[in-house]
Amino acid sequence: MPNEPDPEQRSKISKAEFEELAFALRTRILEAQFALRRQKRPVIVIIGGLDGAGKGEVVHRLNEWLDPRGVETHAFLGKTSEEEQKPRFWRYWMATPAKGRMAIFFGSWYTGPILRRVNGTLNKEDLLGTLERTRKHEKMLKDDGVVLVKFWLSVGRRTQEKRYQRLIDGEDYRWRILPLDWEHYSKHEKFASVAAQVVEATNTLDNPWHVISARHPTNRDCGVGEALATALEEAVKEGELASIGSPGGWQLGDRQRLTVRNHLAQVDLAATLDKKDYRRRLAAAQDKLNGLMMKAWNERIPTVLAFEGWDAAGKGGAIRRLVNAIDPRLVRVVSVAAPTKEEKDRHYLWRFWRDLPRAGCMTIFDRSWYGRVLVERIEGYASDVEWRRAYAEINEFESQLLEAGITLGKFWIHISNEEQERRFESRSTDALKRHKITDEDWRNRQKWSAYEDAINDMVGLTSTKECPWTLVAGNDKRYARVHVLEAACVMLEAQMKGL
Amino acid sequence: MPNEPDPEQRSKISKAEFEELAFALRTRILEAQFALRRQKRPVIVIIGGLDGAGKGEVVHRLNEWLDPRGVETHAFLGKTSEEEQKPRFWRYWMATPAKGRMAIFFGSWYTGPILRRVNGTLNKEDLLGTLERTRKHEKMLKDDGVVLVKFWLSVGRRTQEKRYQRLIDGEDYRWRILPLDWEHYSKHEKFASVAAQVVEATNTLDNPWHVISARHPTNRDCGVGEALATALEEAVKEGELASIGSPGGWQLGDRQRLTVRNHLAQVDLAATLDKKDYRRRLAAAQDKLNGLMMKAWNERIPTVLAFEGWDAAGKGGAIRRLVNAIDPRLVRVVSVAAPTKEEKDRHYLWRFWRDLPRAGCMTIFDRSWYGRVLVERIEGYASDVEWRRAYAEINEFESQLLEAGITLGKFWIHISNEEQERRFESRSTDALKRHKITDEDWRNRQKWSAYEDAINDMVGLTSTKECPWTLVAGNDKRYARVHVLEAACVMLEAQMKGL
Repeated sequence: MPNEPDPEQRSKISKAEFEELAFALRTRILEAQFALRRQKRPVIVIIGGLDGAGKGEVVHRLNEWLDPRGVETHAFLGKTSEEEQKPRFWRYWMATPAKGRMAIFFGSWYTGPILRRVNGTLNKEDLLGTLERTRKHEKMLKDDGVVLVKFWLSVGRRTQEKRYQRLIDGEDYRWRILPLDWEHYSKHEKFASVAAQVVEATNTLDNPWHVISARHPTNRDCGVGEALATALEEAVKEGELASIGSPGGWQLGDRQRLTVRNHLAQVDLAATLDKKDYRRRLAAAQDKLNGLMMKAWNERIPTVLAFEGWDAAGKGGAIRRLVNAIDPRLVRVVSVAAPTKEEKDRHYLWRFWRDLPRAGCMTIFDRSWYGRVLVERIEGYASDVEWRRAYAEINEFESQLLEAGITLGKFWIHISNEEQERRFESRSTDALKRHKITDEDWRNRQKWSAYEDAINDMVGLTSTKECPWTLVAGNDKRYARVHVLEAACVMLEAQMKGL
Repeated sequence: MPNEPDPEQRSKISKAEFEELAFALRTRILEAQFALRRQKRPVIVIIGGLDGAGKGEVVHRLNEWLDPRGVETHAFLGKTSEEEQKPRFWRYWMATPAKGRMAIFFGSWYTGPILRRVNGTLNKEDLLGTLERTRKHEKMLKDDGVVLVKFWLSVGRRTQEKRYQRLIDGEDYRWRILPLDWEHYSKHEKFASVAAQVVEATNTLDNPWHVISARHPTNRDCGVGEALATALEEAVKEGELASIGSPGGWQLGDRQRLTVRNHLAQVDLAATLDKKDYRRRLAAAQDKLNGLMMKAWNERIPTVLAFEGWDAAGKGGAIRRLVNAIDPRLVRVVSVAAPTKEEKDRHYLWRFWRDLPRAGCMTIFDRSWYGRVLVERIEGYASDVEWRRAYAEINEFESQLLEAGITLGKFWIHISNEEQERRFESRSTDALKRHKITDEDWRNRQKWSAYEDAINDMVGLTSTKECPWTLVAGNDKRYARVHVLEAACVMLEAQMKGL
């Protein structure tokens, strides 16, 4: 195990020593906490460890030492039915603190895998897969500026036994524990061995564990306090350096392509559909989709469809035909605009996690997380490093949705530059559509070729085998709408067959 | 039934007529929607009616007519386990749109009571109680500037029968309905009669129903569109008038007391506790509280404790002693500071609804919804009418929590003016407490007597029989902490006995 506590156990810290140490630690921790708040850095402190290590006591201690404003403790008690319906990391995403705030995770994404490995519902291989996902999740947080401090409270069999005995005897009057903990006691060896593997596998350079011996409660608390103070102070320094360094290093780089293939050129924009065929195929596809969504509801399969496309490509019209086919209780359209304050204060993927559908329902995103590698790339809202790493982050995000059994489709509706101009002109004179066209839309037209590059990169880098892009020829609206509906049906059908 | 549609049914609108009408309606609706967005008014449109009236079709139609940005449809499908654990209005609170946004409620707070009255799980008296609560809820929304438009789609037995038949025959290919609707068909008479009572009882002057005949779908949609356009346009006008009128009429009024009794004067600030007694009673109370919270967890009883008090009265210390007694997975402290943008964009009670505990857990509010009648009253953040009506709103809020089985306690920690000064001085020189004292705290001391008035009014106007204030003598910290802990135990015990 990494960072193993000194095998020569330090002797027990006396009460007087503790008070002196605690005062010094608290001063350091408070100062670092305020500095990070000013830097608008989010902090997550994970308290892990076997039962009997005193995780709860440590959580209480930290809450006592920290300034309580802006600190939230999250316990992740048994999943609610909503949590059961969502991908595994959903509840951790929802608990992620906003910028300048702090979260203490009592239990975390580590708890489930360890428990399931011990009771045998997770095999060794799947555990490794889970840990790989965990490393990626933590890296993504770190990349986004989250200060992540992970504690593992290590406890030997004898110490655990002693603590349980004290609890049984009622000596620790105010520290009764929930019944669910008790069953773990008998499996100490197995727990310890799985935990060691997990800690080893996730002790990365970026996000190392602090392993603290839980043998003596006062030593344990001082150990946690010391490591926390140091970690927070380092983060403060890091933040100061970054704020000096960033204007030079994080400047928006050159606009060159990351990939070479021109995916857009392969879309046959001449494709059309006559009115009669349109009506027939649209009706048939809507009928089919209606039935498939009923089935999805019955089988509790969630669906996510993401729509991207040029301004005026006809996303809205295509989405409306989709929505009209579905019982409105089962479908929700999320229009993605500039992020709100709440959204800006978090990772850019946060709001999409928040809006995932419940089981059996569909969320349609009108614009999506791909904004990161489109508008944010072009306009420089995301720095060069930020949008460059987004492709991998997005692939991981989508992979988690697929793993959770979500039917996932993504559509790019393509039109030619000339067709866009024609539509802009006609919108400007249409009473009902005038509000849809702004000066900014005209300005964006100037950046057509930069967008072309970004779109081709996006399609190239995020078309995975499990979730390829559907490129839709949009010059003919009828053709595009039918294409979208029929493709959505194919996706839903494939998912149901797969079950 | 009020606003009954003309018994002489208008003849069916032809397709050509419809397209003309729809164009005109859409223009009006869009314009009003944009105006309300600029005015930052939230809009809720309720679509109610018996099954077969075409609620879903109307929802689709409105989504087609409205600008989709900033519009959310909420369906309130079967409750999730989280929703089951919360008071009845919780999910409607969570779905309440922010300022400038719009929500279409497909189903609403009306659905449950009607269903339960029809299937007999709600008796007539309880139905009336529920409707009273509904009227208050709608009034509160209206008072806060929400534009609430309620539609009841009325459908006769014959029309309903015809529509069901078409569905069975598959003629309405894309309009299959979820199985759950079918069972209602056989009880048409009963549904119609309960619905008529409900609509009658909630057809208030402030929030009237628009009853629309659902016999002909096109007529129905035009009727809804017409009424919606008119209602939104009226709200726009109202908003324009309010923005002109408000500086005069809504000015912060005089500071006179609303009630006469001096509750604070009755607190015995001389009460003290010596160190030995303190230790003994604190330990005993913590022990007891720990056990009670275990029991609350097992019996799924949620607890809410609200703490108010003078600056430096010792709220934090008292809360810490409470929290330390409880398994940290079961308790959460919410520090209430100035509202965030997200919170400001909603009713002031919204964030407290959001943070209600899950079943078996406790939420401690460090400052609470009483800010409305304390700091917001004193500083003029709430207008005169706003804070004056807040007492009734708060009583209603708390009454709903109690009805949902939540253990609810509220504490005012009282200290003398001199004691506060002493503590401010000592905080200024304490390394760990320096951050707790700001210039604003010193400024607030100037307003002591205005606060005294506000506190006495608050205690007088919100000490209900079911949920009285606990006034705590805080000059002696030991006495205050023990008082709080022991009082919390009494509340929890009383709640468990009551079950």
